[in-house]
Amino acid sequence: MIENNTNIKKVVLAYSGGLDTSITIPWLKENYGCEVIAVVGNVGQDNELDGLEEKAIQSGASKIFIEDLTDEFVEEFVFETLKAGAKYEGKYLLGTSFARPVIAKKLVEIAHSEGADAIAHGCTGKGNDQVRFELAVKAFDPDMEIIAPWRTWELKSREDEIEYAKERNIPLPMKEDNIYSEDRNIWHISHEGLDLEFPDTEPDFSKVLKMSVPPEDAPDEPTYISIAFEKGVPVAIDGKKMKGTDIIKTLNKIGGANGIGIDDIVENRLVGMKVRGVYENPGGAILYRAHEILESITLDGDTKHYKDKISIEFANVVYNGKWFSPLRESLSAFVNKTQETVTGDVKLKLYKGNIITAGVTSPYTLYSEEFATFGEDGVYDQNDSQGFVNLYALSTKVQSMMKKKVKESVE
Amino acid sequence: MIENNTNIKKVVLAYSGGLDTSITIPWLKENYGCEVIAVVGNVGQDNELDGLEEKAIQSGASKIFIEDLTDEFVEEFVFETLKAGAKYEGKYLLGTSFARPVIAKKLVEIAHSEGADAIAHGCTGKGNDQVRFELAVKAFDPDMEIIAPWRTWELKSREDEIEYAKERNIPLPMKEDNIYSEDRNIWHISHEGLDLEFPDTEPDFSKVLKMSVPPEDAPDEPTYISIAFEKGVPVAIDGKKMKGTDIIKTLNKIGGANGIGIDDIVENRLVGMKVRGVYENPGGAILYRAHEILESITLDGDTKHYKDKISIEFANVVYNGKWFSPLRESLSAFVNKTQETVTGDVKLKLYKGNIITAGVTSPYTLYSEEFATFGEDGVYDQNDSQGFVNLYALSTKVQSMMKKKVKESVE
Amino acid sequence: MIENNTNIKKVVLAYSGGLDTSITIPWLKENYGCEVIAVVGNVGQDNELDGLEEKAIQSGASKIFIEDLTDEFVEEFVFETLKAGAKYEGKYLLGTSFARPVIAKKLVEIAHSEGADAIAHGCTGKGNDQVRFELAVKAFDPDMEIIAPWRTWELKSREDEIEYAKERNIPLPMKEDNIYSEDRNIWHISHEGLDLEFPDTEPDFSKVLKMSVPPEDAPDEPTYISIAFEKGVPVAIDGKKMKGTDIIKTLNKIGGANGIGIDDIVENRLVGMKVRGVYENPGGAILYRAHEILESITLDGDTKHYKDKISIEFANVVYNGKWFSPLRESLSAFVNKTQETVTGDVKLKLYKGNIITAGVTSPYTLYSEEFATFGEDGVYDQNDSQGFVNLYALSTKVQSMMKKKVKESVE
Amino acid sequence: MIENNTNIKKVVLAYSGGLDTSITIPWLKENYGCEVIAVVGNVGQDNELDGLEEKAIQSGASKIFIEDLTDEFVEEFVFETLKAGAKYEGKYLLGTSFARPVIAKKLVEIAHSEGADAIAHGCTGKGNDQVRFELAVKAFDPDMEIIAPWRTWELKSREDEIEYAKERNIPLPMKEDNIYSEDRNIWHISHEGLDLEFPDTEPDFSKVLKMSVPPEDAPDEPTYISIAFEKGVPVAIDGKKMKGTDIIKTLNKIGGANGIGIDDIVENRLVGMKVRGVYENPGGAILYRAHEILESITLDGDTKHYKDKISIEFANVVYNGKWFSPLRESLSAFVNKTQETVTGDVKLKLYKGNIITAGVTSPYTLYSEEFATFGEDGVYDQNDSQGFVNLYALSTKVQSMMKKKVKESVE
Repeated sequence: MIENNTNIKKVVLAYSGGLDTSITIPWLKENYGCEVIAVVGNVGQDNELDGLEEKAIQSGASKIFIEDLTDEFVEEFVFETLKAGAKYEGKYLLGTSFARPVIAKKLVEIAHSEGADAIAHGCTGKGNDQVRFELAVKAFDPDMEIIAPWRTWELKSREDEIEYAKERNIPLPMKEDNIYSEDRNIWHISHEGLDLEFPDTEPDFSKVLKMSVPPEDAPDEPTYISIAFEKGVPVAIDGKKMKGTDIIKTLNKIGGANGIGIDDIVENRLVGMKVRGVYENPGGAILYRAHEILESITLDGDTKHYKDKISIEFANVVYNGKWFSPLRESLSAFVNKTQETVTGDVKLKLYKGNIITAGVTSPYTLYSEEFATFGEDGVYDQNDSQGFVNLYALSTKVQSMMKKKVKESVE
Repeated sequence: MIENNTNIKKVVLAYSGGLDTSITIPWLKENYGCEVIAVVGNVGQDNELDGLEEKAIQSGASKIFIEDLTDEFVEEFVFETLKAGAKYEGKYLLGTSFARPVIAKKLVEIAHSEGADAIAHGCTGKGNDQVRFELAVKAFDPDMEIIAPWRTWELKSREDEIEYAKERNIPLPMKEDNIYSEDRNIWHISHEGLDLEFPDTEPDFSKVLKMSVPPEDAPDEPTYISIAFEKGVPVAIDGKKMKGTDIIKTLNKIGGANGIGIDDIVENRLVGMKVRGVYENPGGAILYRAHEILESITLDGDTKHYKDKISIEFANVVYNGKWFSPLRESLSAFVNKTQETVTGDVKLKLYKGNIITAGVTSPYTLYSEEFATFGEDGVYDQNDSQGFVNLYALSTKVQSMMKKKVKESVE
Repeated sequence: MIENNTNIKKVVLAYSGGLDTSITIPWLKENYGCEVIAVVGNVGQDNELDGLEEKAIQSGASKIFIEDLTDEFVEEFVFETLKAGAKYEGKYLLGTSFARPVIAKKLVEIAHSEGADAIAHGCTGKGNDQVRFELAVKAFDPDMEIIAPWRTWELKSREDEIEYAKERNIPLPMKEDNIYSEDRNIWHISHEGLDLEFPDTEPDFSKVLKMSVPPEDAPDEPTYISIAFEKGVPVAIDGKKMKGTDIIKTLNKIGGANGIGIDDIVENRLVGMKVRGVYENPGGAILYRAHEILESITLDGDTKHYKDKISIEFANVVYNGKWFSPLRESLSAFVNKTQETVTGDVKLKLYKGNIITAGVTSPYTLYSEEFATFGEDGVYDQNDSQGFVNLYALSTKVQSMMKKKVKESVE
Repeated sequence: MIENNTNIKKVVLAYSGGLDTSITIPWLKENYGCEVIAVVGNVGQDNELDGLEEKAIQSGASKIFIEDLTDEFVEEFVFETLKAGAKYEGKYLLGTSFARPVIAKKLVEIAHSEGADAIAHGCTGKGNDQVRFELAVKAFDPDMEIIAPWRTWELKSREDEIEYAKERNIPLPMKEDNIYSEDRNIWHISHEGLDLEFPDTEPDFSKVLKMSVPPEDAPDEPTYISIAFEKGVPVAIDGKKMKGTDIIKTLNKIGGANGIGIDDIVENRLVGMKVRGVYENPGGAILYRAHEILESITLDGDTKHYKDKISIEFANVVYNGKWFSPLRESLSAFVNKTQETVTGDVKLKLYKGNIITAGVTSPYTLYSEEFATFGEDGVYDQNDSQGFVNLYALSTKVQSMMKKKVKESVE
């Protein structure tokens, strides 16, 4: 037993039903002499949830909570980030990054209501997720003990884990060889490992992808859709009002069928290393692009330009696990203020991986023929241009005069 | 004659051979009583250059200079911006923006060598180009007189212009009805006007596009290419060394055939209005994506993240006509320092509008299996994670402790 | 009469009672054949308001409104900017910049209620204030006609103005020779002109200053004060609750007596030129420093660092006349979110131009002995440092390994 | 002996001669069975260097290197940062932050030339310096072993250390009770600890300060000095050319005598906690202010505004120990480009803690009477203003039109 562990009586474990968190149950019991409560936060991984209760109990958990966090996840995390236009390193839609905090928050709630002494998670010591989990836990309870077995135990390989499980009669998941390491929720799937660890090689999408088809396999005919937004939040597809989770599910289906939202990137982890992953975000890619298009007619230039910088910061903060922080909340306050007029309809044409603009309208549009044609008696007087250019160029002129003067003084 | 114009004896005119700049020649002569020297800056518009000399003289110019600026344009403007990763409003590759300064610089040179008193351009008073032209002129000669007939003359329509031309026996370009307003050079074509002025309507790409086919019309088989970079600059395609202009021409052809690099956007002009345009950048889109992919393995995270902010500023500065400015040069100094290790090869798969990563390598890669697998005795010790997370989370913990204390003090 | 002016029947004029705006009244009447309504926006210039009514009527105004905007100015403009920590170019506390919008807003209100066709102001064509005025007017009424006589009339000097006034029996202000051009309100005084136009010369503060004494003339004994803030807004001095305007007045007096808040700077105007000014901001300097000190214990590092960037943008936006804009409002939303815990007391020692920290406390402090001493069983475990440093350094290590490898491969 | 330590045969120790690093010598020998080479990096702590050789040998070192790094420190670190205008959190001039890397670089050089296996330092696990040291070591040798005894040994108090020293006959420094923890070099002194740990109390500057007098004790007469810069670097005082270190020494003396450059701040450490310190930077404060004043006439507005953001990043990067990083080098490239015209003379009046501008000139000034007075036939035509304001306001007008239209459509 780990020294000083006798004060841990009850542990809440972030449980997925996979091999890793399954063997964590007996490991915690053996090393801490504690009761283990399994908690599953459902953020849309869906089909993976079947049979979890039985499996957890059989693995030694005293209790299991299966919490449906999908709506909360979508409304308060996914859409908040969509409004910010935040993409980590210009590409990654943060699907895993904000799934950790929503789950961690629930873990603390259950730990409090169940009187647990500690929270355990199955993240490895190499990744970002340990940081995201633990920061979120501490944000809600600074004194909560956190246990991360992966950083300390002696199990060094999948084989070690299987043996450890067999010795304790833990139900083994069906054998899957050579599978990519995957994180899935309603918003995305990420794929890592195997041949993806070699950035010099092209992945075989037909083997990697689960939500989408490769562009080559998409239909030869384009699909048109229309998305309605209210204050930056998607509210309807093709005129049909839906709640957030349904919008994402619908778009995942349509987008996935058209080969949309596949990204293959090398990203910089918080902990100083680069990792290569393939992401599937069919619905996300469509929503981000639609939102951008709507903003292109509803945000003025100054706001757009500064918001682009806010987006970068927002993405970094969320990627680095600081969802529950004053900075993220302040960035969101900025973003939400900008979204007050981001209301309207965007029509898109989806075709073999392409998202093509097919029309955008908004009651708050800052673009309209009235402004754009600038007829002779319109809002724009070309005579103003001369003065504008002269004053706008004044700083340039002054510098040029200085240079001329310096040059002459030298000669 | 315009008052106070008697001191203008010789004008250098930025000449294109189109109707607008053709009638500017007699207009200048009639209104200023001056000699007009036509200057054509070739930045890759190519086929539009035939017969220009004859046309200029026939329109009344005393002389014409046709200057091939293509290499300078590509090496010193296009690639400098490519290295910066600068896209205006996240999309526009600045094809028109940096073509104006390179031409303006040449105009000043010729004005000086020919002893001209003024420089004239054919930009309207509604757009960005007048600003770009005039700032660049002033950067090289603060005292040079600038004449912009479009902002002042009484010709209000194409019909007015044609009549004006006919009256003076100016050779008319072949009649083209209902054509989009277009700006073309080796890097891009932009299209504006007609139905594009209505953002709620989908453009008919088959009518708009000139360099590219729509994705639907691209081949059913993907095309693979490999691009080599040295210090951020493309130097070879498929292993064959080429100069910059040839690289762009080659990629325009390949990219155009595969429906790559078509963007349909509403952008914010410097002068406060929104404009909708369709851009074709087949080669540019490929080069930008390839460069990004190479940077993803050769730049460290800190540098990448800050450079993303520099990119936004770089794009704004260039879009707004300040190419020749201390700020742009200082931004370039930053960028060039970052590019010292951006050397390597990027393989891409082009397919119906998609640019798909097919492998990247670099002698300076910061990604390699050695770092990535992080085996037990490798560079990464998972035991370090605990300490890392604890200290990284310290600020969060301290805030959480404060909140708890405040809450308790209230209760 | 100016052509096309016959449609202007009634003009609302931003009136100060000075020579410039006094002669504007007959000028408007003569050139537009209109009625002129004078409006004085009191933002704390105080003593300059005596006798204005009589003077306006005598100068030909049909009516005068003297509006006390001081509280609104302080609560909604000054403190909003104080919370943002915004200083233009790191120095200027924006005293003139946000006084223009609050007045312009009132002008539009009165123009609407009085049924006026146009708004006139007395700003010159060389400065920032014309921009600030006109943007604010347009923000509330895009169609309101704006008249800026200074940009167009033929009066080229003070002598011209005096003669113009005499001819029309306009009451002349007392003769003041060689006075600095000055803008005053409750928040600040700015001084420009005369010898200040030469940055190579030291100003004679004894001649320039009006609110403050030079540091040399301040008392030999320091003055201690204590300022209480609630959510970033000052609410009490030395324990005595006061409304905002009284806090500023009190601090102006104390600060002015101690030689606080004098700045002598060369700043970059929006319209491309540099101008040199001396600013007096005794109360402002104290409030900014006190607020900063309080934030140093109540904001976490991430928030502080990003807010420092927001401050720069906020200052630029306000300086450039865009108070009433989505960007400024979004920046304020960010700022206000950060201020939720900026509550507490700051004690300062004022001594001959110095503001010296003499103690700060807050119920929301993120600094406390408990966190700071970090005793052995406290919140901080030094053993964590090793892991932290190792992972924090990982990116550096990886780069260093790459360089070593490259170097070896070359040898 | 620490396990796995047998492979360490020779250690290079960053040695100061204080109690902490003195006892580190026997501790390393006892725990690693290794030879210890003491290295002192002189960055201007000066008087602390006497008798160090004898002391190191007596403490058990086999050898000592006393390296004068002062010129390198000043030219390549201090002035590089001065040019950037970088102040951490707007205040701290980074005196300790960049002293660590210059020393660490030398440690690696000596470790390589002496064939050492490891580098040891005496930084605690609570501070920033461990990070700065170790990142710099890794930047030059990714494989170098680093030993940080303070993070692991059992000595928990000064008393423990003294006993440990006595037992081994280590020469004890003269007894000093209740002294502030201090870091000193040619650029600054920092003070921490004792009553400074309580931000609610005013420090007694007469007890804390060593380089400066409190403003109250400064002379009643001001001191005037003039500083000449070339490309952002100070090169002369009062017309007398001096090398960098002499400039700083001279200004420290003058500034210190006038109570200049004392800062009392609560700052955010990298490792998530706040610390309160008093800094003395007499020469630094003068140089920063002089440099700022010179930039106010030599940098154009755009460059100044963006450089202010670069300054913040530069300070963060240096504070966080990343001196030797591509990002810092790229930021420096930006900065150095901006400094090409930052040449000229700045005259200052120093008086009891105040630095007052007394005149600035530059051959590259962008301010001059010629530009500033803007006479009637000068570079500025007031008629341009109308057009400028109209176009500059266009975005505001368009938004206002939209709002009006929306409002009308609702009514």
